[in-house]
Formats: sequence, C-alpha cells, structure tokens
Amino acid sequence: MKAAIIGVTGYSGIELVRLLENHPYVNIQSIHSSSQVGALLTESYPHLVNHIVLNLEEIDTSKIAENVDVVFMATPSGISSKLAPKLIEQNIKVIDLSGDFRLQDPKVYEKWYKKEAASSEELKKAVYGLSEWNKEEIKSASFIANPGCYPTATLLGIAPLIKHNLIEENSLIIDAKSGVSGAGRHVSLGTHYAEINENFKIYKVNEHQHIPEIEQVLNRWNDNVNAITFSTHLVPMTRGIMATIYANVKSNVTAESLIELYKTSYENSPFVRIREEGNFPATKDVYGSNYCDIGVAYDNRTGRVTVVSVIDNLVKGAAGQAIQNLNIMMEIDEKTGLHRVPVFP
Amino acid sequence: MKAAIIGVTGYSGIELVRLLENHPYVNIQSIHSSSQVGALLTESYPHLVNHIVLNLEEIDTSKIAENVDVVFMATPSGISSKLAPKLIEQNIKVIDLSGDFRLQDPKVYEKWYKKEAASSEELKKAVYGLSEWNKEEIKSASFIANPGCYPTATLLGIAPLIKHNLIEENSLIIDAKSGVSGAGRHVSLGTHYAEINENFKIYKVNEHQHIPEIEQVLNRWNDNVNAITFSTHLVPMTRGIMATIYANVKSNVTAESLIELYKTSYENSPFVRIREEGNFPATKDVYGSNYCDIGVAYDNRTGRVTVVSVIDNLVKGAAGQAIQNLNIMMEIDEKTGLHRVPVFP
Amino acid sequence: MKAAIIGVTGYSGIELVRLLENHPYVNIQSIHSSSQVGALLTESYPHLVNHIVLNLEEIDTSKIAENVDVVFMATPSGISSKLAPKLIEQNIKVIDLSGDFRLQDPKVYEKWYKKEAASSEELKKAVYGLSEWNKEEIKSASFIANPGCYPTATLLGIAPLIKHNLIEENSLIIDAKSGVSGAGRHVSLGTHYAEINENFKIYKVNEHQHIPEIEQVLNRWNDNVNAITFSTHLVPMTRGIMATIYANVKSNVTAESLIELYKTSYENSPFVRIREEGNFPATKDVYGSNYCDIGVAYDNRTGRVTVVSVIDNLVKGAAGQAIQNLNIMMEIDEKTGLHRVPVFP
Amino acid sequence: MKAAIIGVTGYSGIELVRLLENHPYVNIQSIHSSSQVGALLTESYPHLVNHIVLNLEEIDTSKIAENVDVVFMATPSGISSKLAPKLIEQNIKVIDLSGDFRLQDPKVYEKWYKKEAASSEELKKAVYGLSEWNKEEIKSASFIANPGCYPTATLLGIAPLIKHNLIEENSLIIDAKSGVSGAGRHVSLGTHYAEINENFKIYKVNEHQHIPEIEQVLNRWNDNVNAITFSTHLVPMTRGIMATIYANVKSNVTAESLIELYKTSYENSPFVRIREEGNFPATKDVYGSNYCDIGVAYDNRTGRVTVVSVIDNLVKGAAGQAIQNLNIMMEIDEKTGLHRVPVFP
Repeated sequence: MKAAIIGVTGYSGIELVRLLENHPYVNIQSIHSSSQVGALLTESYPHLVNHIVLNLEEIDTSKIAENVDVVFMATPSGISSKLAPKLIEQNIKVIDLSGDFRLQDPKVYEKWYKKEAASSEELKKAVYGLSEWNKEEIKSASFIANPGCYPTATLLGIAPLIKHNLIEENSLIIDAKSGVSGAGRHVSLGTHYAEINENFKIYKVNEHQHIPEIEQVLNRWNDNVNAITFSTHLVPMTRGIMATIYANVKSNVTAESLIELYKTSYENSPFVRIREEGNFPATKDVYGSNYCDIGVAYDNRTGRVTVVSVIDNLVKGAAGQAIQNLNIMMEIDEKTGLHRVPVFP
Repeated sequence: MKAAIIGVTGYSGIELVRLLENHPYVNIQSIHSSSQVGALLTESYPHLVNHIVLNLEEIDTSKIAENVDVVFMATPSGISSKLAPKLIEQNIKVIDLSGDFRLQDPKVYEKWYKKEAASSEELKKAVYGLSEWNKEEIKSASFIANPGCYPTATLLGIAPLIKHNLIEENSLIIDAKSGVSGAGRHVSLGTHYAEINENFKIYKVNEHQHIPEIEQVLNRWNDNVNAITFSTHLVPMTRGIMATIYANVKSNVTAESLIELYKTSYENSPFVRIREEGNFPATKDVYGSNYCDIGVAYDNRTGRVTVVSVIDNLVKGAAGQAIQNLNIMMEIDEKTGLHRVPVFP
Repeated sequence: MKAAIIGVTGYSGIELVRLLENHPYVNIQSIHSSSQVGALLTESYPHLVNHIVLNLEEIDTSKIAENVDVVFMATPSGISSKLAPKLIEQNIKVIDLSGDFRLQDPKVYEKWYKKEAASSEELKKAVYGLSEWNKEEIKSASFIANPGCYPTATLLGIAPLIKHNLIEENSLIIDAKSGVSGAGRHVSLGTHYAEINENFKIYKVNEHQHIPEIEQVLNRWNDNVNAITFSTHLVPMTRGIMATIYANVKSNVTAESLIELYKTSYENSPFVRIREEGNFPATKDVYGSNYCDIGVAYDNRTGRVTVVSVIDNLVKGAAGQAIQNLNIMMEIDEKTGLHRVPVFP
Repeated sequence: MKAAIIGVTGYSGIELVRLLENHPYVNIQSIHSSSQVGALLTESYPHLVNHIVLNLEEIDTSKIAENVDVVFMATPSGISSKLAPKLIEQNIKVIDLSGDFRLQDPKVYEKWYKKEAASSEELKKAVYGLSEWNKEEIKSASFIANPGCYPTATLLGIAPLIKHNLIEENSLIIDAKSGVSGAGRHVSLGTHYAEINENFKIYKVNEHQHIPEIEQVLNRWNDNVNAITFSTHLVPMTRGIMATIYANVKSNVTAESLIELYKTSYENSPFVRIREEGNFPATKDVYGSNYCDIGVAYDNRTGRVTVVSVIDNLVKGAAGQAIQNLNIMMEIDEKTGLHRVPVFP
C-alpha cells in the first residue's frame, strides 16, 4: 500500500516514519506539512538520514488522494475536521490521529476542544480505532478516528472491569501521568526544559479533552457510566503514559480472579500483556513499542481495585495503534511491522 | 542549643546539616554514624567542605546525651526503637525522623514495617510532629516522632476537609508521587539510574508503611475514617512529592468556598501556601524549602474534590519539619532557620 | 542598600531575588521588566510567594536611579549597552550581568554578539567583575561587568597555571558543559524538553561569544595567549557548568605541586575549594551555591594538565558573583548573604 | 545460525536479545548467566515478554559449543579470558563484548584492568572488531574482540585524520561523555539515581581502561602516535556517547575539505553518517540504532580540528557492532537486522 503522512513534522508524524519503515506492505509515498514545504524531512530530523529521502509537500488533498491508498493525519486538532472529509470522498482510507473525529457529539467537541467541530454527519463516518475492542468495525472501516493516548491506556485498563459489570460505574478515578512528548513539538513555557526537568506537575485539572472521549466509550460499554474523575500529570521524561485506575468493586473479587479475567479478555490481543499478581508495569517496559502492559491489585481493606496500565504515548498511544488499525483494515496480522522489543534500558 | 545528629550520612542527615547551618540558635555538636567512624563527613560529601569540620563518631547514647540538648535521629527504621528510649531517659530532647515511633500500636508497626516494634509504653511517649496540626502538644514535648514524607503532604492536604466534615470519610483515594531521594542513599536496583531515568513506576501497591500512619491521624481527627486507598509512584527526579487527593464531598461546595476554607485553616501556618482557583502547585515550587503548597479543585460533574499537595520530601517531609518542630519546642518563631526561597529553576 | 533589579523575570533575575533575601544589608526596592508591567512577580513565579510582594515596574532609568543605590541588570545582551550609561551618570552603582560591557573592543563585541556595541568610552568605565582576581579594581568600581558563566568557571580554573607561566599559552583547550538554564527562560526548540532530555549536544562550535571574553582576560594575564579552543555542550540538567581544561605544561610538574599551587592561589578566596589529588568535583557539589570547586590532574604520559572546574551557572556564574562583587564594593565580608550549603542531593 | 548469549542479564546481553529478534538468519538458542540459573529471563526483564521464552542456563562451555554456531560473550572483564579459549577450541565462532581480548599485550591489560590477562598466545587469536576499518580481517575471523564503546566512537571519529596524516599525532585530546548505562546493571553509589541525576561528573581521569585500546589502534594506523589525552564524563542520561575530539592540523585544511574526506572515507560504511558543515550530531540522533554520526569543524584561529562523534553505547558501542561483525563474518549485508531508525524523540 502507498501511504501519505500529513503533519509529518510532528512527533507522531516522525514516529509513523520510524515504524512504517519496518512494515513490509506499506510504503511512504509522500509526506506533507503546512510549513517547510520543499525541504527534506531530514533537515529537521537528521536521525532519519538513510531512511527517508522525501521532501515535504504542501497539503493538496486531491493530489494526495490520487497517489496513495491510505492517508495518516498527524495534525493538531482543528485541521483534520477540515481535510479528512475531502480525502474520504475520494475513496481512500484515512486514519486520523487527531482528536477531531473521536467525539460523536459536535457540542461536546466544541466544549472541550474550544474549536469548531466537524459536522455530525461527518463525525458518524469515523470508526473509533481502539484496536483491541473495536476490531470488527475497524476491519470494514475506511475512516478511523485513532484514539487519544490517555484514552488508550485508560480504556484498555478499564474494559474488562466495566464490560463484566464488576465495578460501581461512577466510582472511577483515573490518575494519569504522561511524558512530555505528548505535548508535541510546539515550543511553550510548559515544555521548556528548565521548567519541567526535576519537576512534577498536574495540568488541566478536570478539563482535559480526553475526559469526554473516555466517558463516551465507557458509556457505550455500560450506559450506567456518567462521569469519571480523570487527572493528568506531566512527568519529567520524554515518552510513556501510566494510568493508575481506581474503582469500587460491586461484589467480592480477588486479585487472582481479576488477573485471570484480564488474561482471558486479552488472550487474542498480542499487544496487551498482563502481569502476574503483585507485579506492576513501569512505563519503560513498553518504551518504543506498541505494548500496553497492565497490572491489577485488589485491596480488601477498602474494597477497591487498582489497575495500572502503561503505554508508549507515541506508539500505542498514536502512531503504533494507527498502523495496527491499518493492519486490521488490511486483514493482515495486526503485529505486522509492530512486533518490536521495547527499548530497555 | 547543642545538637547531635545520629545517622548523618543519609540524605535526611545531611539535609539537617544544610538547614541547621542557617539556624541562629542551634549548633551541631557531634555527628554519628554506624559506619565510617572517625572519618570526616566531608570525605563522603565534599559539598559540605567549609561548612562542617566534624568527624563521624560512634553511636554512644550516654556520651551523646551528656554533650547535647537535642538529638536528631535520621536512621533507617528499626534503629531508633532501640536507641531513642536510652536517650529520652537522660532528659534530652529527641526528634526521631524514622518511622519507629509514629504508629501507636506495635502490632500495626510490625505488620507494615515487618520489624520488631518499640513497646507500647515507649510509643506513648512520642508526640506526632505534624507541626501545623499538633502545635500545642509539640510545644511541651520532649520526644517527637517526625511524620513521614508522604503523610506530611497527604495530611496537610486532607486536614481541612476531614476536620470540617466535608467529605465522605471512606471515599479518600490518594495517588502519591515521589522523587527518588526518598529511598535514601542505600544502593539497589530500584534506585539504579538506568532503571529509573526516563521511567515512571508504581511500587508497594496497597502495602506502603505510610498507609497506617495516615489512617491513624485521620482516624484521630474523625473516627469515621477506616481505610484509605493510597498509592506511591517513583518519579524520575531527585526531590519532591506530590499527593493528588480525591474524595467525594458530602454536600454542595464550590472551589471558591474550599479555597477560602484552606486559607483560613492555614492562615497562621507560614509554611503552607494555598493557590488561587485554577492554580495548582508543581513540586519544583517548593524545591529545597519547607513549604507545602496546596491547590484545590471541585468538579460538579462528579461531586469530587481534587486536592494537590506538594512538598520537598527531604525538607518539609523530613529535616525541615524536624527543625520546625524543634523551633516550636523552643517556643521561638517556627520559621527560624527555615525561611528560605525555594530553588527555582 | 536599596537595590533595583532590571530584567527580574529571567532566571538570573529571580536568582538575585532568592539570594538577596538572605542578605542583611541589601533590600530589593523595585523590580523591572519590559513585559508584564504591573503584575506581581509571584504570578509568574509562585515559588516566591511569602518572599517578595513587589509588582513589576517599567524600566524608567531616571526614576530607578532616584530610588536606589545599586541596580542589577539581568537583561539579555543588547539592552544594558543602552540603559547602563544612563544609570551610571546618575551616580549609582550598576552591576551588569549581561555580556554588553565585558569586551573592551566594540568590534570584537559586534563580531561575536552580532549586535551593536556600546561605545569604547562607555566600555572603559566597566570593571570586569571576576571577584577572585580583580578584587582591588572592584572595590573602587561603581560599574561592574559581571563575568559570563563559562568564563567564570574557565578563568578560575586556568588562572594559577597561566599566571605562574606553567603552560604553553596556546595549547589551551577547554571543553565546557552546561545545564539548560544557561539558555534562559526564552522558549525555543533548543530548550524544548523532548529534544534535550536524554540527549547530549554540542552547540556554537568555535562560535560562542564567551570565547573572546576568556581570551581577553587570559591575554591581560599573559600576553602570549592568542587563541583558545573552547567548546560548549548542553547537558540534560537544569543547573551546573563543568569546564574540563587541557594544556601542555612547560616544564616538569606533579599533581601534588599543582594542587599546592591552586590551594595557595585561592587561600583567601572563600568560594573556591580545591580538591585533593585524585579527587574531582561534580556539578552537584556546588548546586545552588556560590562555590567554584576545582580538581587538578597531571598526566606524565602526555605532559598535559587536566583541570576540572565546576560552578552553578546561575549563582557563581551570574547572580551570586554579582552579589559577591557588591559585597566587595561595599567593603564587607564577601561571603555576606552567600555562605550557603549547596543543595545535595 | 544458532547463537548463545553468555552474560545475557547485563545491559549488553539484553540489547543483543532485542536486536537479534529482528535478525532473519540468527536464532537465540540458549542464554547463560552465572546467577538466576533456571529462571526465565522475563522475570528480570518483563519488557521481553512475548519475545523470548528461554530459561537462564549455567555456563557450561562444552554443552554450549555443541549446540550453537556462535557465542556472544557479554560478560564483565575477567570472565571471557577464562571462557573464550575453551569455546574457540571447539570450533565455533566467538564474539567477545568484554575488554579481555582487545589489548594485545598482557602487561598493558593488567596495568589498566587490574586483572589477570589472557595469555599472549590466546590474545593473538582475537581479531579487533572495529567493523568499518577491519572488515577484511573480520571476514575470515572466528574470534572477535568487539571494541569498547568509547574506542568505537573515538576511533571512527579520528580514523580519516590519522590515516591521511593530517594531524600532529601527539596533539590528540578526546573529551568523551557517556550515558550511565555504560556502567552496566551492577548497583553502586556511582550509578545511584539521586547522585547522578541533575549532576555531571568526570571519572577515571587519565585512568580509563579504554585509553590503551585507543592508543593501540591509533599506533597501528600511524606509529608516530604515542599517547593521547582521553577523559570520560558521566551524563545524566541512560544511553549515548559523544566523543569531542581535538587535534592540531599539520597543514592547511578547511572544514569543507575535511568533511569531503570523511564522506569519502565512509562512503561504503552504511552506519556512519557525516554531517554537513556547521552541523553536529547529538546523541539522541542515533538512539537505539547502530549509527555513528560525525560532524567536523576547523578553526583557523587556532589551527585545530574539532570532530564530534556520537553513538548509542549499547548498540554501535556493544551489541549492534557485535551483530554487524557477525554479519561480516557470515558475508551477508552488514545491515542485516540492524537497519533501524533511531528512536527520536
């Protein structure tokens, strides 16, 4: 397949380049950006020398659609709502890594993103690409709204509990932590080295745009879910997300039974690895890979379950899951091009 | 006052040295360690050259008690349970920075610390040194159990809520994060640079020895509190603790009213700084200082309050609070020697 | 003394605030910035709450000169060349932390800074404030050009060698490394967390504006010095500079004799600490303090000396040395307000 | 080919596992360690789950030699001097990643390593595996002494200069910097997180065991080389080495001509990438990959060349070059299994 990447100069964009190079069936045909048009991508990213010799092209949707089979959109929010509809109608596959097509209700999008939403009609065309739980829909999709990084870690961590009706639906508290690459390459005081290093911050308290995305999915799975508490923190590291998830259980469980449930739930999911009792993943265990590692604890003193879910925000939380979704759409082994050992240490 | 420091070669020990140098009324008379006896402290810690010229002495409690007015014990758990009783009976003041005298019930200590406890009788002699909330008792105390780092951040964050009966007592979930210096100077794979850097870990899930310490204090304040959920994470940084605290409120509140309550609660506490609405502290805001900075949010979608409390684990979480307690015992301004600007950036 | 700080919102500016609070004879009267005029400094820097309650004022040199005895200029290069002359003529003391008055030759300034220089006449009025080696001139000065961070570490490391004619003058190679706070608070891709963390970079190879500053001083000390090789690297840390200095010795020396020489050279310099043979300082040994720690090695296989000199770039490399110079000008103990234990770990 | 890895539980060992998984012609048959025999490797390294299911076996050289075609030795120094001879005589290929067979003179080894050397006879059997410059010998070798991490970065940076007789042979000064993973997984105060983070250190001044290794090779290339100055520093990061190399040129050169020379020298070396004038590599540009990126500057003020050479110490500096050497021995494309995009950011 021939692929184009729009927004290739961002961190998700170059991660697509890194991962696709290993993909036997996908070839990057063209790369696009709103800036630096004409320049080699390797001028901004010398680590890519010997791996990609394409020049950045402008974003001309007609021309792109003529030349490729699939387009990855790695643009900031507010861009693909404009561009994706033009691409879709030209009968090519589109995988949107931005948040523009994840929320089905335009009003909800506008409330949390503070930007103009795509129309309801367009939004309906997008299939939510949470690979492990939406595989059948993805298979037949031509337009994927790739999940957010936090929602991926969080939803994979919660799914077995909520689908098996084990927890009080409105007791969910998710305390999430992310490396700084999640904020992208746009410079700001909030990503200025001297302000972030040797520092730990909370941000967007009760205001993160991934809250409605998580709630929308949970509510589809179990319509008793109304609102969650979801907090985001910035960790002085580049890659990695941990979601620490707390919920009250409805009835008696044990750590063993829960871990068994998780193992069964993910037995056909090659990228989800469940830890044994008393073991919990750290973000580095999945560094550079498409894995989501999950550990589960139950505390009978409090009647609460604690789930720890980690991903690499740029891989399973962005470019990796996008390729996994393409694999599913192509009906090839979902591991194709993605079966990589995490980089440790 | 003449002071001795036992366990001076650990991180809390040298932080006492750093902070006491600025103290106009306290002089370090002798320093003690179970290893390197006879050596200059500056051999292990060259940053202290020009500031302390003492040699490490052995731990001879009789001799120590003869020569000083106050002893700081900065030893690992399991040591001061043996040594402190001998010092106390010699009529000097003792401030124990370890966990040995914080839990009143020896069985609880033995369950969580997996070490032999001091006797109930000895335990009763210790006053819990949470400076802001136990000032009267501290004033007349001669033996202080200095609070743990996590309990300090957590309890200062929760106190106004629980004392004013604003939250459902058993809805408390505390997601705590710490820099690595909290683990001390003892080398281990868990503090090995290449395993910690660019990594974020959870540890001791539902098993941290600070859980019963926090519960004991909360229960004293409000006997409806039974059990809390308390998780600890390791952040790739050296200093700093953040406790992100979640609880369900009992009745209608607003962020404004809560912040007002916090400001009132701490109006006579020079080391607690409350943020305005929408503002939350980061750990670096208190780096190297004795401050505890607190931010408060309320989410009416979920009916939950989120409190963010940060300290420097080695200062307010250890050596700083110990000196603050000494100041209170001496009935001098509690800021004496501690009124320092945090080191930023 | 009443002091004003111009450019207080930069990192050197707030470091002046941090350090001056401890100074018994200096009071910050007013703070000035070209932006955010009217705002409290604590809005940008909440770590300063309880320590400074001043609002930012515009930079009106006449008004400033009326109200204070000394002005610290912590502005980017190109600003004080315009402002300082106006302040000086009003008979107040000025300490300029920028590079504008360090180079005596306007053409050299313009070549390396690529900005318009102050006039030769104005440049002559400034005394170079390398405290340890220029004390007599500083004492009687009213206008100080405070040295750059790299030149401070480098010159203190080289001085005994070059002044005692021990090294081949043009064999000097200085490989310098700095934490990222040296780049200031201005955001850029070069200080973007994800590009700097877990990365080590060289920058401005043979082009750093501190090269002529170092050469000018060395040449004053020994006019055989023409050109040095001086490289600068960015270390993924916030504070700290190490200069690793290499030179060929002229005649037989030993490490012992060199260390003896360094000790003698700095015996009256309370902020320079010389290590024993085989011991070398790390940047953290001086963190947050005004120290310059120096280690010296001699390799008889190569006939080369290696000198390792470390400082905290924001303290001895900026705000601390500025205050040290003020102390010298005031003819009080140069340690006043600066005798602080480094923050370790 | 069937491979065994001895010393698999160290960082070079698991990096071999990570890289070999992508290798189409090499299969890891068995893994060996002196500790934890019988345990799954994934117990210590959960990031390897789904990638290797082997148990750790004891180090029985006869048994190993029976079952495999090639053995990688990723052991600490002092081990393979004992084991490798036994393996070699059983007619299998051995690639030794330790320093035991790099120095041809046993006395030199014993002086710098302070351990017993292998015999001269055994030492002679080993071919030094600097892939780019020793390819012909490697092709026909059955026993490879894989170069050290620092020598690899350094020698690739110096080779074109010294081979073309462009520099004064005894003017070489190499200021090298490494991430902490180079120190391995063995815990010590020198790799304790709180002592290394936000710190920059020099270590083993004039005493690093890689000095004679570099000198031996340089001397083979040009027998006027006697002694170099080579310093090693510890950077607060996990992976990456930069060697900043300084030398006096013998005659007139320009940066352009030097860069042209480097490009020509490495035109058949797929893992060496030369930067254009004014561009210099950072360690992150090669993170996780087998590249060595090199930048070159010439300063006509001083007559010195500055070469900047970066590698990932665990890949090109250890496991990657070992596999590259195996590829060369197998006479297949040397990029096989190693053509990976660096992980950025």
